[in-house]
Amino acid sequence: MENIKFDGKRLFILDQTLLPNEEKYIEMKSVEDCFNAIKLLQVRGAPAIGIFAGYSLALFHGNNIEKAKEYLDSARPTAVNLSWATARIVNAFNNGKSPIDEAVSIHNEDIEMCRKISEYGLSLLKNGDGILTHCNAGELATSKYGTGLGPLILGKEKGYHFHVYSDETRPLLQGARLTSYELEKAGIDVTLICDNMASLVMKKGLINAVLVGCDRVAANGDTANKIGTSGVAILAKHYGIPFYVLGPYSTVDFSTPAGDDIVIEEREADEIKSMFFEKPTALPETRCFNPAFDVTDNSLITAIITDKGIAYPPFSKTLKELLK
Amino acid sequence: MENIKFDGKRLFILDQTLLPNEEKYIEMKSVEDCFNAIKLLQVRGAPAIGIFAGYSLALFHGNNIEKAKEYLDSARPTAVNLSWATARIVNAFNNGKSPIDEAVSIHNEDIEMCRKISEYGLSLLKNGDGILTHCNAGELATSKYGTGLGPLILGKEKGYHFHVYSDETRPLLQGARLTSYELEKAGIDVTLICDNMASLVMKKGLINAVLVGCDRVAANGDTANKIGTSGVAILAKHYGIPFYVLGPYSTVDFSTPAGDDIVIEEREADEIKSMFFEKPTALPETRCFNPAFDVTDNSLITAIITDKGIAYPPFSKTLKELLK
Repeated sequence: MENIKFDGKRLFILDQTLLPNEEKYIEMKSVEDCFNAIKLLQVRGAPAIGIFAGYSLALFHGNNIEKAKEYLDSARPTAVNLSWATARIVNAFNNGKSPIDEAVSIHNEDIEMCRKISEYGLSLLKNGDGILTHCNAGELATSKYGTGLGPLILGKEKGYHFHVYSDETRPLLQGARLTSYELEKAGIDVTLICDNMASLVMKKGLINAVLVGCDRVAANGDTANKIGTSGVAILAKHYGIPFYVLGPYSTVDFSTPAGDDIVIEEREADEIKSMFFEKPTALPETRCFNPAFDVTDNSLITAIITDKGIAYPPFSKTLKELLK
Repeated sequence: MENIKFDGKRLFILDQTLLPNEEKYIEMKSVEDCFNAIKLLQVRGAPAIGIFAGYSLALFHGNNIEKAKEYLDSARPTAVNLSWATARIVNAFNNGKSPIDEAVSIHNEDIEMCRKISEYGLSLLKNGDGILTHCNAGELATSKYGTGLGPLILGKEKGYHFHVYSDETRPLLQGARLTSYELEKAGIDVTLICDNMASLVMKKGLINAVLVGCDRVAANGDTANKIGTSGVAILAKHYGIPFYVLGPYSTVDFSTPAGDDIVIEEREADEIKSMFFEKPTALPETRCFNPAFDVTDNSLITAIITDKGIAYPPFSKTLKELLK
């Protein structure tokens, strides 16, 4: 599973908007191609966007690298990894270093970071475990391994067998379209369920641990992630199942004291009522509430697993200690 | 909202398979039309099927009422209300009474039963309450009022204003297609959400009570209902929100001691991966687990509201006492 391929000269991406029905690699031939690939979500996931933007700028900066950076950055203005990666390329260029080597470094560093997260995560699992996951925090969103799915993919390499249940993750169905796809392709035993089936699957004793990614971790461990994550955490607590959050240490935002300080993005009603469907599922006049994320209270989280190590409660103390 | 219309001579149903995009009444002209309407789920919900089957047999029994009953009953063999209603029609016929009058009685008795459930339910709510519901236990599934939605519709008649959040209820989307449709039509303030948004909506303090219907209530109060109900109940308990189960007293099955004795029907993977969608959401080889129901533990239920009154824990005692 390679979402971003660079053969030394040419840059390709797997068009994620066509998954799981079509596996099509597109070659990037211009900075405009790269801009569109980010804008249209053909490449997605914060780390993957950063890696891709690095190659994009290194290959297609033309005569004015600053202007090309600005253009690429505008494809998804809120993706911090994007401007972080393009800034590294510009910096390499200005210092007379090879922008392409710098792009390769960004890529390799991400693989290394994911591998560390995966190793820490795997240390908490047992061969044969049943795992529940929500949304997509795998190779398609990062480089190799992924974050939330990393221990499963690394575990597979090491001969572990896991039984994975993947929440389809409404409304955008990343769990169906991406997670079940990439685990199936990796030869990992995966079963797709609707989000509302998680309770029954846990009750039946099929789940030994929940693994999810994270969009932002507050200083006290409260974690923003894909909508529905907090519900899964409450179910896990009810059934006595460990709930693990996995992500780069850079996702911990010490300037955000607690989850209440995280603003939750609301998205269009059409994503609930009509996107992906043959016919609308509700009346045109029916209102929808479509929050993209929710915040999982730190009291529901068993451990936060980063590339710097594993933090256990109380997170306000242990997250800081990981730096030492 | 009339799902079944009988004008004294002609029988019509609102084709529920076309909702919410098309409101089409179909006239039934033969016993075959009626059989197909049940079989194809143009009419659905146990009480509604019973009412409809009563009219069907009364109008179209032809020369052999026993044979016509058997034929209709075979449209959905597990729907107990179906054979119960057709048996009443046969009995009236054999006793020289008007089968049509008997069908009208079945219909009116259901309205009366739903009204009682609705009144008991409404007594537990306050004007202005925020309500969460899952699946569809409204007028489309019964006659008038419904069970789970009954207090909302009766409340509307009495001038109450509720803010209702309707889970879309994957995989068959009854909450989107039917509940949000019928509440919108009834002029009730309804907002559609994906199932995995219930936790956030509760956390935001928008929900004062959860109302759901039930498919079977065990003697100890454990309740089988649409998949996802047990998850909603666990969230409600976590956030300290009352969780109410509403249904006819006949749904309490004293021969089933507890929820573990209820067998859960598993349905086709296609309902998760392809039904309703423009394109499949997962690979053809991806396995799905698609349980139709789950069982909510009695410890998660605040009260069970029936046409005989309201039962509070301990249900093994109080459910029996309602008969006195």
